[in-house]
Amino acid sequence: MIKKSTILLFALYFTYSPSLAADVERYIRFEVDGKKAYGQVIEQTVHQLNGGLFDTRQKTGQTYPLAKVKLLPPVVPSKVIAVGLNYRSHSGMSGGAKPELFAKLPSSIIATGEPIVIPKGSTSTHYEGELVVVIGKKAKKISPQQAPDVIFGVTAGNDVSERSWQSSDLQWLRAKASDSFAPLGPMIVRGLNYNDLQVTTRLNGDIRQSESSKFLIHDIPAIISHISQHITLFPGDVIYTGTPGSTRAMQHGDIVEVEIEGIGILRNPVVEE
Amino acid sequence: MIKKSTILLFALYFTYSPSLAADVERYIRFEVDGKKAYGQVIEQTVHQLNGGLFDTRQKTGQTYPLAKVKLLPPVVPSKVIAVGLNYRSHSGMSGGAKPELFAKLPSSIIATGEPIVIPKGSTSTHYEGELVVVIGKKAKKISPQQAPDVIFGVTAGNDVSERSWQSSDLQWLRAKASDSFAPLGPMIVRGLNYNDLQVTTRLNGDIRQSESSKFLIHDIPAIISHISQHITLFPGDVIYTGTPGSTRAMQHGDIVEVEIEGIGILRNPVVEE
Repeated sequence: MIKKSTILLFALYFTYSPSLAADVERYIRFEVDGKKAYGQVIEQTVHQLNGGLFDTRQKTGQTYPLAKVKLLPPVVPSKVIAVGLNYRSHSGMSGGAKPELFAKLPSSIIATGEPIVIPKGSTSTHYEGELVVVIGKKAKKISPQQAPDVIFGVTAGNDVSERSWQSSDLQWLRAKASDSFAPLGPMIVRGLNYNDLQVTTRLNGDIRQSESSKFLIHDIPAIISHISQHITLFPGDVIYTGTPGSTRAMQHGDIVEVEIEGIGILRNPVVEE
Repeated sequence: MIKKSTILLFALYFTYSPSLAADVERYIRFEVDGKKAYGQVIEQTVHQLNGGLFDTRQKTGQTYPLAKVKLLPPVVPSKVIAVGLNYRSHSGMSGGAKPELFAKLPSSIIATGEPIVIPKGSTSTHYEGELVVVIGKKAKKISPQQAPDVIFGVTAGNDVSERSWQSSDLQWLRAKASDSFAPLGPMIVRGLNYNDLQVTTRLNGDIRQSESSKFLIHDIPAIISHISQHITLFPGDVIYTGTPGSTRAMQHGDIVEVEIEGIGILRNPVVEE
């Protein structure tokens, strides 16, 4: 049996451990003293950046201890696209011919630590732990081979889904894009091998989903190429890549954690409206 | 028989006629000399605004003849929501219990005059002329009675839809949100009675759709109230309210016009990729 304190130490290790590989870079968006900025995290220190994430990323020289800043969603996208039925462990025999796309909304996004709100009228709001890719360059009609060049990095996401609305509504918008239905973070990491990262979801500390992104039916380059045939992607746009295994309804008072190898833990409490 | 020149005169009248009611205001976003700005249109003159549409709307004093500026999409939204099955003439007996929502994308939007691009692989890309509402204030959980207060104005839209993808894909994102699938404009008009405006679509000059917004199953206040129960609306967000009657596939070389009483004509050529 593993003690809770051991799990906590593991959690802290993954959340705050320094980069292990020299070419891995970690970025956050944060608030301190009422001001919002992007920052690069090096070991336990946040180095504030001048301007956005997608240009030169110059450091201002201002630094803060990581533990002292409030983490915001790590990026402000112009759109949020998600992929359904992208692990066999989740979809069974459904899907597979092409990536199946749907929309979440920028207004759905919350940061790590912020509450997932189960809306009034909901009977079955599920977690879905997912690897999320952040676009770094404008992209239209690119091949899977070109896709790595337009990827800025990866982060963790929770594709919160109201199952009864998913069945009852003509389309999934309300089921997938209600406020707080897109937890995102805690950091965007560059330089990881996003084609083989373990994605683990815990509900109140118990592992509920755990699978490597190597089992994605459509891998990240294939997803980006498919979307870009029809839809122009812009720097900051985010793509939720699909959830593995099975999911279940959350309840008021639950804590959901999506942990991704090399990225850290996206942790959100659950409250009923 | 009506001569083409008569139709053209009518078109020019509706596009450029001055406001008939004293409290009607018209706004555009435009480009001139390489700079982009918002402007208020008074008769044939564009009065440039200082900053955005949703604050004080101070005029800079700079003016341009309307005919000399390039019209841009009249707003830059953080999201684009659309309603399906919202006229009995289009939906038949389907829908009706609540507004059925789906997403288009900010990257789908094009201005009047810009081409609708039929994507490679498309077999059936349809027009859908629609009244579009532009949100003016942040809104969450408002009643239909409160909705008029958060509406900035209305404009015309074309909810371009790829019918074969609408059938074949799990969700409608690619079918509804491909690049160029959201023509919007030419102007945003404040002060109109949006609960009774004639929406007319012409393909190459022939009327294909024509119905008043008074026949919307869910009117604009009901739509806004429903969305805002789940999704926070922000200034600039746009909502396509649904299309009347029947639609058909467009072809390379077609001209599609969506004309709305009091707003003007949204006119787009159609090209194949």
